[in-house]
Amino acid sequence: MNPRFKYLVSLFRKLPGVGPRQAARFVLSLLNRDESELAEFGQALSTLKQSVKFCQECSNLADNSHCLICSNAKRDPTQILVVEKVTDLDSIERTGLYRGRYHVLGGAISPVDGILPETLSLGTLKRRVTELAAGGKIPEIILATSITAEGETTALYIQELLKETPATITRLARGLSSGANLEYADEGTLKHALEQRK
Amino acid sequence: MNPRFKYLVSLFRKLPGVGPRQAARFVLSLLNRDESELAEFGQALSTLKQSVKFCQECSNLADNSHCLICSNAKRDPTQILVVEKVTDLDSIERTGLYRGRYHVLGGAISPVDGILPETLSLGTLKRRVTELAAGGKIPEIILATSITAEGETTALYIQELLKETPATITRLARGLSSGANLEYADEGTLKHALEQRK
Repeated sequence: MNPRFKYLVSLFRKLPGVGPRQAARFVLSLLNRDESELAEFGQALSTLKQSVKFCQECSNLADNSHCLICSNAKRDPTQILVVEKVTDLDSIERTGLYRGRYHVLGGAISPVDGILPETLSLGTLKRRVTELAAGGKIPEIILATSITAEGETTALYIQELLKETPATITRLARGLSSGANLEYADEGTLKHALEQRK
Repeated sequence: MNPRFKYLVSLFRKLPGVGPRQAARFVLSLLNRDESELAEFGQALSTLKQSVKFCQECSNLADNSHCLICSNAKRDPTQILVVEKVTDLDSIERTGLYRGRYHVLGGAISPVDGILPETLSLGTLKRRVTELAAGGKIPEIILATSITAEGETTALYIQELLKETPATITRLARGLSSGANLEYADEGTLKHALEQRK
């Protein structure tokens, strides 16, 4: 098969969760695009890192040194909601219910995948908390990591990390999700739904 | 969210079968790559159409005007196996059993998706067949379109298209696939497996 085609397929295969067939389908579909469209796509890819920065405070996506949320004085700086990914942050923002700040870890602790605490933005999280404490504030850390082995490990790790600080640490409530059918709810969910009943 | 990030996500969303979440996951993973890697990816995309051509005979991928199969004198030119996609051609080639030529349609007739007969390389197929016939040869057309509504429609359309030509038209045999379990075989498959029993 055409070497350039093969090469581009191999690049698409490196994207998370993309198999050989899907990668080939991607490139075939691109062959039906205008050259101008492909040039734009290529340009956007090449310049991604120049145009997208990470916030120095919370590691959210930013246009410059600080993201829109961290540079928004109206957002309570003493409330820090900790998420794994930028996309998790967006899900919370879409609810429009949260008025505090965020901290994006950049993943969850998973030694098998080579994601160790050092890989995540835990240092800056601790720095933010200690700085707030030094300013006489009592930060609230809301742990919103996934309800997975990795997410739970990360949550426990952060509780340990901030043990010495005055921060109050909370975790997003767990229970039945909206529209959930008891019949299909897993034991873990039911357990929490019972324990945390109101 | 960062506009450049959003923009690249929107470009990935245009790829077949990619939803908003997957597209965002793609771009997030790319943010962890080296700039050089992204530049290469972007370059490969921008130059795709300059580096990948379509064979003027069979519409297979080619480095220049004709693909490796059409320019291979050892491949029987009177046998033309008709597939929807280049990836289907590769699947057949991998068997190493077929020594004829191919014709890549570039899809299957599907008016709802805007894929009409004119969209496919049916004109060149007819041209190839009539040229062979003019040369006193009786071409064999092996229809290998998918066993789907669209694939079947396309196969019927081609049979109509070549009705006036001396071409003998065959269709890939249908029946139980290797390792198939009768219990799970669908009715259509069982029907053909029975009818075409040997």
